[in-house]
Amino acid sequence: MSNSTSKTAITPRRDEDFPEWYQQVIRAAELAEPSDVRGCMVIRPWGYGIWENMQRQLDGMFRATGHRNAYFPLFIPLSYFAKEAEHVEGFAKECAVVTHTRLEADADGKLKPGSPLSEPLVVRPTSETIIGASYAKWVQSYRDLPILINQWANVVRWEMRPRLFLRTTEFLWQEGHTVHETESEARGETRLILDLYERFVRDHLAIPVFTGAKSESEKFPGAVETLTLEAMVQDRKAIQAGTSHFLGQNFARASGIQFQNREGKQEFGWTTSWGMTTRLVGTLVMMHGDDDGLVLPPRIAPTQIVILPITAKEETRAAVFEACDKLAMGLRDSRYADFPVEVLVDRRDLGGGVKNWEWIKKGVPLRVEIGPRDLEKNAVEISRRDQAVKSKESMPMEEFVVRAPEILRSVQDTLHARAKKFRDENTRVIDSKEDFYDFFTPKNPEKPELHGGFALAHWNGSREIEERIKNDLKVTIRVIPLDDSSEPGKCIFTGEPSQRRVVWAKSY
Amino acid sequence: MSNSTSKTAITPRRDEDFPEWYQQVIRAAELAEPSDVRGCMVIRPWGYGIWENMQRQLDGMFRATGHRNAYFPLFIPLSYFAKEAEHVEGFAKECAVVTHTRLEADADGKLKPGSPLSEPLVVRPTSETIIGASYAKWVQSYRDLPILINQWANVVRWEMRPRLFLRTTEFLWQEGHTVHETESEARGETRLILDLYERFVRDHLAIPVFTGAKSESEKFPGAVETLTLEAMVQDRKAIQAGTSHFLGQNFARASGIQFQNREGKQEFGWTTSWGMTTRLVGTLVMMHGDDDGLVLPPRIAPTQIVILPITAKEETRAAVFEACDKLAMGLRDSRYADFPVEVLVDRRDLGGGVKNWEWIKKGVPLRVEIGPRDLEKNAVEISRRDQAVKSKESMPMEEFVVRAPEILRSVQDTLHARAKKFRDENTRVIDSKEDFYDFFTPKNPEKPELHGGFALAHWNGSREIEERIKNDLKVTIRVIPLDDSSEPGKCIFTGEPSQRRVVWAKSY
Repeated sequence: MSNSTSKTAITPRRDEDFPEWYQQVIRAAELAEPSDVRGCMVIRPWGYGIWENMQRQLDGMFRATGHRNAYFPLFIPLSYFAKEAEHVEGFAKECAVVTHTRLEADADGKLKPGSPLSEPLVVRPTSETIIGASYAKWVQSYRDLPILINQWANVVRWEMRPRLFLRTTEFLWQEGHTVHETESEARGETRLILDLYERFVRDHLAIPVFTGAKSESEKFPGAVETLTLEAMVQDRKAIQAGTSHFLGQNFARASGIQFQNREGKQEFGWTTSWGMTTRLVGTLVMMHGDDDGLVLPPRIAPTQIVILPITAKEETRAAVFEACDKLAMGLRDSRYADFPVEVLVDRRDLGGGVKNWEWIKKGVPLRVEIGPRDLEKNAVEISRRDQAVKSKESMPMEEFVVRAPEILRSVQDTLHARAKKFRDENTRVIDSKEDFYDFFTPKNPEKPELHGGFALAHWNGSREIEERIKNDLKVTIRVIPLDDSSEPGKCIFTGEPSQRRVVWAKSY
Repeated sequence: MSNSTSKTAITPRRDEDFPEWYQQVIRAAELAEPSDVRGCMVIRPWGYGIWENMQRQLDGMFRATGHRNAYFPLFIPLSYFAKEAEHVEGFAKECAVVTHTRLEADADGKLKPGSPLSEPLVVRPTSETIIGASYAKWVQSYRDLPILINQWANVVRWEMRPRLFLRTTEFLWQEGHTVHETESEARGETRLILDLYERFVRDHLAIPVFTGAKSESEKFPGAVETLTLEAMVQDRKAIQAGTSHFLGQNFARASGIQFQNREGKQEFGWTTSWGMTTRLVGTLVMMHGDDDGLVLPPRIAPTQIVILPITAKEETRAAVFEACDKLAMGLRDSRYADFPVEVLVDRRDLGGGVKNWEWIKKGVPLRVEIGPRDLEKNAVEISRRDQAVKSKESMPMEEFVVRAPEILRSVQDTLHARAKKFRDENTRVIDSKEDFYDFFTPKNPEKPELHGGFALAHWNGSREIEERIKNDLKVTIRVIPLDDSSEPGKCIFTGEPSQRRVVWAKSY
């Protein structure tokens, strides 16, 4: 917690131990912490504030495209869950099961589960089957379609190797579930959501992604096709940022979602589902964080600007506080139309250095100091979180009030450009098996993170090759670019023909 | 579904069968429906939209009083839950218990629960114990206090006699959990939230309430004192609209929330908890609904104004649609600062009568018709949901755009005034046991709802009397007014001294 040039606020640094750095950033920023319930986390106010902003922004985009929110039960009867064979196979190992109601005291007065349920209930790992049961009732005719509904909810997937935000037994998400009259309309919805997600992560989270389809072995259990967004974080691994599934008629058949079509015939509906989760908070940390802690894109930060009064001298204290409040009021009154500007004056009696470092570690985009000398000049000292922690710019207070949204937008753009540059520098077109194995093999066993990235290579489309590469290198196909990216070539592993390069990487 | 004067949109009418009327209003307004999971409901978009507005409005009030949101695990280890004796006793019968993870196929291929957990997990019925475990880590010194956190979440309390919104096994709520340095500060918080809740239900839901404390037998398991808000709905029964608990040091002791106080001594924190739930949606239905369906207070309606194009004649169709869109745009562009105005143009090709009745049943505050004759006059026909369904007022379009917020406010005020008048007319000061029994005894056994209300009567403070009255009449003490309401008298059942009248009623 020193601001000397040799030391950083987070120990270890990213290049020393990336996984441990990640944990330490989350702790230092007070985003979340593990709970005593295996695999479950507590999301603290600063972390939850980021999630709330994601919710608000995504929710607005869903509404603008005709979706409405609803809420379905947490519990799924075992018999519902079992209706779609691939689905149950995919999730069986991760289910938490409610078998009893009531607690009773045993002979020693120790509490134990009381009354067994006649049918066990699965705590939803995803809601296709329970929502399908409602849709089957709501849909009678093509006139009832489309159904465009989203749910904000918690879900549970038992996790053996939990990691804060990235893999937790309970997590928060949104899950969209739609029903359509035709296959092409449902495929169109799947694609519309993929594009919406891409805009969201690009414009709000400053995250560039590759988009496309998952291979057969990586798609959602029960889906016909899974579209995905894949981001590269700073250890060059991929993180799946969201998925949009075309479910064909599989779940409609399982749940009995049938309608009378325009020709008067009964037909199964065409469904989709799509989701983004609290994993995005972890993605943000790994994407933009630095050796001094979290770095938040301004559009998603719970607070964009923190004002720090420098009150070392008792005699100027009141005047400094007054100037800080005046600045905060000026910023709030401006009600900038096109950029969120939440302002906080940190009046705590803690010492300027301690407070400054706290906000650095929390990733606040702009820190503004006002001290006695600034008062004389009617100026402020601005520090941008995307620049070196010691760099400051002095600016007349009135100018800052006018320019604040522009400066925040510049921070936002810098983070996106930096992330894109990093990704592009670590994405390689690879045309031989030898180069491929070399690319993904650590050069320095002490620092395994200093290798790899995204490899764009041709592939014959077979599951066997995927399996072999996964076993050899822990590398998988993250995304198969969509149709508009055709580039015929030859599989680098077998020499067989290939329609396009696919994206390979290690992943979270 | 006829608009003749003799028939109403909802069958039965309120005075025929109030409980069945309630179910039918919910169905007709598409608010919610039972699911196949016992006691759990599906909240449909119109019902969820009401809840989202409640969330947004309450959340703003919590933030304005210094509270922040966070999120804690769904599952509570049995050992945590057992730490506070009264608490576990109060909730033991209502718990859903997770005992297994994974699903496995048995010999017949039938799915069954797989791996038993070493410690069963309770699905949270409320989160004092799981949140307390985190607070115990976060609180070291009086400098860490107060902690002012709220959580929006789902909770589960196994319900033997479910009723949509009012009693469901799973429900949605907010639960505030705070820790304070002193008893008086914690009591102040409990009271601050009571007042906040009262303002919320009055100003946003148009619900008048009596506020005060619960008796010993009705308070939250583990609380020192429970404050409550009690509303009277149209069958004259009470509904508890929210509660705010002063927990003393009970839960701090159970969870180990200790801090070093200003004298350097270790002390247990003083905690509070408080909540409002999706039950409020059911309360709204019973409070304001009429024989034609739901009646929504404008401030909480998902849509304040529905514009209905009258397009019987093909040749004026395009012009009517255009006028409707122009009006919608005019209303949206106005961005009224002090009243929410969401507008929807119902362009569906369904026939004006069907659409009109659909929105009546959904309780939209203002319906605006525009037909060919209105076009000529540049006028609109306005129907207020708080007035008879056939009453209409013609108004120049431009005048309506200016006056829309004023008219909506008038609807809001009318609903509150009507509810308050009804409550006051059915609240009796009662000074003898005989009158009390008479007040609560049905006069017409065919229509049990046409009697009773709130009785203000003196009581000796004993649990025995409460029990007896409950057994005899199914009547309980809903609320004990706070200190400022002292009015010494004599218990009407025993003649013993009493400090104040308490509020008795049947309740949901």
